[in-house]
Amino acid sequence: MAKSKTTVKIADQWLRQVLLLLYQRRHLTRIEIAQFTGLNPASVSHALTHLLRRGLLLKTGETQSESRRRREVFDLNPEAGYFIGVDLEGDRIRFALTNFVGDIRCRWEVPLEFRQPLAPETVIEGIRMVSREIAAAGSGRVLAIGVSYPGMLDAQGNLVAVNLGWQGCPIGEALAAAFPGWPVFLESDKDTCILAESWRGAQTYRNALFLIAEGGIGLGILVDGRLVRGMRGLTGEIGHWKVLPDAADLCNCGGRGCLEAIASSPNIVRQYVDAEGKRESPRAVRITDVFERARQGNPAARAVLDRVGRAIGLALSHAICLLNPEIVILGGDMIAAEDILVPVILDEIQRRSLPVSTERLSIRVSSLGLDIRLRGAVLLAFRSILETPESLRTLGVNSLPRHAGTSVVCS
Amino acid sequence: MAKSKTTVKIADQWLRQVLLLLYQRRHLTRIEIAQFTGLNPASVSHALTHLLRRGLLLKTGETQSESRRRREVFDLNPEAGYFIGVDLEGDRIRFALTNFVGDIRCRWEVPLEFRQPLAPETVIEGIRMVSREIAAAGSGRVLAIGVSYPGMLDAQGNLVAVNLGWQGCPIGEALAAAFPGWPVFLESDKDTCILAESWRGAQTYRNALFLIAEGGIGLGILVDGRLVRGMRGLTGEIGHWKVLPDAADLCNCGGRGCLEAIASSPNIVRQYVDAEGKRESPRAVRITDVFERARQGNPAARAVLDRVGRAIGLALSHAICLLNPEIVILGGDMIAAEDILVPVILDEIQRRSLPVSTERLSIRVSSLGLDIRLRGAVLLAFRSILETPESLRTLGVNSLPRHAGTSVVCS
Repeated sequence: MAKSKTTVKIADQWLRQVLLLLYQRRHLTRIEIAQFTGLNPASVSHALTHLLRRGLLLKTGETQSESRRRREVFDLNPEAGYFIGVDLEGDRIRFALTNFVGDIRCRWEVPLEFRQPLAPETVIEGIRMVSREIAAAGSGRVLAIGVSYPGMLDAQGNLVAVNLGWQGCPIGEALAAAFPGWPVFLESDKDTCILAESWRGAQTYRNALFLIAEGGIGLGILVDGRLVRGMRGLTGEIGHWKVLPDAADLCNCGGRGCLEAIASSPNIVRQYVDAEGKRESPRAVRITDVFERARQGNPAARAVLDRVGRAIGLALSHAICLLNPEIVILGGDMIAAEDILVPVILDEIQRRSLPVSTERLSIRVSSLGLDIRLRGAVLLAFRSILETPESLRTLGVNSLPRHAGTSVVCS
Repeated sequence: MAKSKTTVKIADQWLRQVLLLLYQRRHLTRIEIAQFTGLNPASVSHALTHLLRRGLLLKTGETQSESRRRREVFDLNPEAGYFIGVDLEGDRIRFALTNFVGDIRCRWEVPLEFRQPLAPETVIEGIRMVSREIAAAGSGRVLAIGVSYPGMLDAQGNLVAVNLGWQGCPIGEALAAAFPGWPVFLESDKDTCILAESWRGAQTYRNALFLIAEGGIGLGILVDGRLVRGMRGLTGEIGHWKVLPDAADLCNCGGRGCLEAIASSPNIVRQYVDAEGKRESPRAVRITDVFERARQGNPAARAVLDRVGRAIGLALSHAICLLNPEIVILGGDMIAAEDILVPVILDEIQRRSLPVSTERLSIRVSSLGLDIRLRGAVLLAFRSILETPESLRTLGVNSLPRHAGTSVVCS
């Protein structure tokens, strides 16, 4: 009796480790799995047998070792289940249905009206859109929903995004009620971005920062391979760091000198329009117009972007000295101004940091494109169900027949 | 064969969890141990039997449950082994020998000459001093050495403390060579402080910051119960945050506007002496003199400490918005100026942070006194051997007879 309980407990950990490893590396032999996870060969065999039996793994071939022994190669079964990713981007919502390994099988997109409250029904409807093809197939199942949100969750778990005019939308509660069998996991956009960047690339980072600068500014933080969530999930709020404590720039939060009041996209446009003597309306100028004019040598655009780059660089130098990351990744609207902003940011980081803090530090712009938050949301869902013993234990029952998955492509 | 390997692997985790729990809470019943650790009763029994047999635990009594069943109470065996803590404080080195539960049994202290290189021999000699009584008893053994250091370790693992004139002392290597059987663990002073504060108090914190402000300034960071070490252990370097980027104050690092250039103790004295028209030499004024004169209403002292408190508060507001801690603990020389500095720091934190970030935040001054780093160093050693499978596996063989430990008090 005691013995069997024990076995379940251990097996959970083994399963989790093997699934995470195969999600990242795919196609590995038994020996490679033992090496990467640090599990002993007996535990690996136990886990592989269990996962094969549940339909979560496939044998995808064989390879020959140096000693000419044949070794089986294992991979995740891509059709073992589905995930739904939701990206509450701000001016639109993106939805994706992915298979077990994160390949997008179906997309949906809904535009949002500027500064209108977020209606949970819109999100529920979108999830129904991307998932209805599976329901039609009859045999598949959604394992979890991952949601990437801007702003923050308040103490009641309601979504607040001041910059978007969202004042407490009960999105988590509404999705749980609408889809009772599907676990829902929510994470802020800076955190879904860093998950996507640190976990899907060729290299896995354990200590990383992801700066997202658009309508707002936030910093996703990965410490020792884990998302930093703090006491209440309110981490990475560097948009309200008073980087220039004596500056006059007024922030949405009511403070002055906040990074966001200087370096968010609307504030970049504002400073540019002001510097040009307010000849244009800020609503008529796009952030990319400011970038383009700076490229063409416009002095006002160049001066504003220099100030912006220096404010961002100063803030990043602080985060770097505090957390000693391996890599800093820049995302959001900055990607479109890599040529203009990044050199200033790098220069300011070097100037403001201790030399030892930047010695082996990489800094680069995100390369994951528009799907980054969507991919992060799905990764969040995958990782989260592995961390939930109940979800893990039921995983893999009734897995989809292979053809049902590959036929579901509706975008 | 495979079975027995597995058993050892599991038992390690159980042992670790039970030992950590009993270190913090002491005197618990089997059921309480299961509740706090989340282990199932069979695993707890397995671990308790093993630890009792090795002499690491004692049965310390019985208690009666509501249903009048008698329940055994367990505690760590205080004499199961010794730890040595070393605090490289800067102007002196403190040494302590503690028993298994961290009670100090023997102390030693060596003064250091100002700004002279640190000689590993001095440290080795001090360790010999506190440990020789055990050697005389013949049956005891030191399980590990924990060292708390100021400054940082360079890429070669040598200790660098610019403010103290220590330029690369190979302390870890020297101790390992001098005491081959004793594992040596090193951690920076801000980290040993936060370990001591977060782990020995009545409450255990999972997300905490410890600000140490003396000759230098650093921030110890605990995220989700773990020390944040970053890529190379260079975390918490907020002493070099350019909190006032336009300030003229020159820092030891060569930069200007660094927090340390404003708020370290020597710089507080410097500013005060300057404000008083340099009528005294900075070497003749102690930091406590500045505090005392501010208490007596001296305008120069008050103005300097107001600036210092605001700089510290601004820096802390950044760390709070970034990491969303439950608690911020202030340590170092600030303890002696709680009445003057803390109100200004609190006011600035409130003024500069998002309201949600400070909503449930506690801020207080450290109450652990002069022994804080020494206690943290010993805690570091205890936790570290539990994390090292080899150390854990050999733990408890040849444990000391009870009387031998209690007789070793040489200070």
